Amino acid sequence: MTTLKLLGISGSLRRASTNTGLLRAVSSVLPEGVSLEIADLSEVPFYTQDLTEKPAAVSKVLAQMAEADAFVFACPEYNYSLAPALKNIIDWASREPNNVLLAGKTAAIVGAGGGMGTARSQYHLRQVCVYVDIHVLNKPEFFANAFAGGFDADGNLIDANLKQQLGVQMQALAAFAAKLKR
Amino acid sequence: MTTLKLLGISGSLRRASTNTGLLRAVSSVLPEGVSLEIADLSEVPFYTQDLTEKPAAVSKVLAQMAEADAFVFACPEYNYSLAPALKNIIDWASREPNNVLLAGKTAAIVGAGGGMGTARSQYHLRQVCVYVDIHVLNKPEFFANAFAGGFDADGNLIDANLKQQLGVQMQALAAFAAKLKR
Amino acid sequence: MTTLKLLGISGSLRRASTNTGLLRAVSSVLPEGVSLEIADLSEVPFYTQDLTEKPAAVSKVLAQMAEADAFVFACPEYNYSLAPALKNIIDWASREPNNVLLAGKTAAIVGAGGGMGTARSQYHLRQVCVYVDIHVLNKPEFFANAFAGGFDADGNLIDANLKQQLGVQMQALAAFAAKLKR
Amino acid sequence: MTTLKLLGISGSLRRASTNTGLLRAVSSVLPEGVSLEIADLSEVPFYTQDLTEKPAAVSKVLAQMAEADAFVFACPEYNYSLAPALKNIIDWASREPNNVLLAGKTAAIVGAGGGMGTARSQYHLRQVCVYVDIHVLNKPEFFANAFAGGFDADGNLIDANLKQQLGVQMQALAAFAAKLKR
Repeated sequence: MTTLKLLGISGSLRRASTNTGLLRAVSSVLPEGVSLEIADLSEVPFYTQDLTEKPAAVSKVLAQMAEADAFVFACPEYNYSLAPALKNIIDWASREPNNVLLAGKTAAIVGAGGGMGTARSQYHLRQVCVYVDIHVLNKPEFFANAFAGGFDADGNLIDANLKQQLGVQMQALAAFAAKLKR
Repeated sequence: MTTLKLLGISGSLRRASTNTGLLRAVSSVLPEGVSLEIADLSEVPFYTQDLTEKPAAVSKVLAQMAEADAFVFACPEYNYSLAPALKNIIDWASREPNNVLLAGKTAAIVGAGGGMGTARSQYHLRQVCVYVDIHVLNKPEFFANAFAGGFDADGNLIDANLKQQLGVQMQALAAFAAKLKR
Repeated sequence: MTTLKLLGISGSLRRASTNTGLLRAVSSVLPEGVSLEIADLSEVPFYTQDLTEKPAAVSKVLAQMAEADAFVFACPEYNYSLAPALKNIIDWASREPNNVLLAGKTAAIVGAGGGMGTARSQYHLRQVCVYVDIHVLNKPEFFANAFAGGFDADGNLIDANLKQQLGVQMQALAAFAAKLKR
Repeated sequence: MTTLKLLGISGSLRRASTNTGLLRAVSSVLPEGVSLEIADLSEVPFYTQDLTEKPAAVSKVLAQMAEADAFVFACPEYNYSLAPALKNIIDWASREPNNVLLAGKTAAIVGAGGGMGTARSQYHLRQVCVYVDIHVLNKPEFFANAFAGGFDADGNLIDANLKQQLGVQMQALAAFAAKLKR
């Protein structure tokens, strides 16, 4: 019985992204009763108020967000801040009436990058979550150094220790989400 | 004689954007010897390493950035952080060899938004500028409340006091850029 | 029957502080079953590992923190960041074994200051709370412009609208704390 | 001939502080014509408007700040943000008329701490510097992992590579300060 539906959203559009790889790794360490889908942002355009119709690629992700109880954000760091594609889908989602896709839901953040493992970007994402009213798990945080050999050439996580950390984080997310259930 | 070339870059893609309106207002308050072009981000796609050729819209903006001595960033605030389109063009620019388009240049930040005038977003942009090595003017900062009647329906700045503040900021930017000339 | 014990901690040491005034105002708008004590930081010294004994003023506040289920941080903004006295008591508290005084507790943040109502400082405090594992209420945030006449000369909040906002925030804190009860 | 006077200010009050150790190491790698004093914050009390006389320990540091052309901030990270003692002396300094001790001066930031080398705290300090109008060197940043063996038990920097990095940073600071000379 699935009791918690997660949606994984990666800010990297690159096919061999290690951040998207983290989401695939999350799939393999889910606690019992927890499921994960992964969103596809490749065709999502920049949000602008001038668009009068919602593009199909946007509608599809927003429908997944509506179904999700909680989010796993795979948060790259580009130039000390957020990946535009990740910020952009949150901006799209935040425009729905009453912020119904996001308000009061929970999230965990993971990231793969340089030596600080996308930390700088993750704190910016946490500030975004204050406004859109997502409760972000405090601990454990997850920072992977993508240049230290833990990933294969396709971006798959192959480091057993990091995979185990993801499992611990997902346990914590499940417990946190259960408490804060809307 | 033009001694300082500014490039204005607005993070909003909306036609009637008040942030883009601020850049037009800057044009009308430039100190002597200072010129301003305004970049067009409407066709710039999300950066991804998988793109093997640079899209024409990107090349055009990067060429303008190469020509510019300094930047004026019109920085909206979406959900307490940066507009994806503004972050994205900086990400594109930062990939050029030796960071030649950005390193050591100067910038001023302006923003129009809610009651805090995009302040939260502007501090995220300042953190980005640390990494890409742009020297951002400390003072005066510029925060416009776009809901207080200072703009017309097309996003043009009509508030004389705010326009005067922009002029003061551009004077400060010109002096700052002169000192830090590469 | 008291079901939720709050500890109010103000970062300002000034006798007529408007931030401490906010905590007194909170006392007057508490939901049923919620109590509030206010900590006294006036004799708390800077934390340093070289101190071999805990000063009495520190022990007293830490004992109050141990008793508290949740915190109300009155967060001034000095030079775009935290008041040292507020940061310092959190630093003291964080040194207790297993972070027992803070971990998993909840908090709301209020602030009185300039036009942005200490917003910049509050986001720094939120980042601190990630590390010490305090769950900070997302909404409603509370920002008071202390220069707009809502306080008397002793720092007491006299603005009815702001007082009502505090009441709404305390209701939200009580509900949030109930869900996240350790 | 001394052409640039630096004042080093460490946020740690601990006798064997690695952050203060970084300042001593800076002394040994100064470019020609650059001198460094190190401030003593051990007796500086918390700033409050209620104090009617400036304590002697404060006056002494402020006098050093008046003499300095530029600052080297040794910035510890406590609970993901600033050390209160460092923030506090900046708050004291910022109260002088016309912000004369700080406005327009330059600074470099160094830090020794956990795996991220006090990065989170350093970005908070940079935000402070926007308000007090200090121009902070963008690059090179300096992050030391104090738990990786580069310091002796008294907090002295013994790692040759880190010492060399400090030297490079001081060269950059001297060049930056020369350009921005008031």
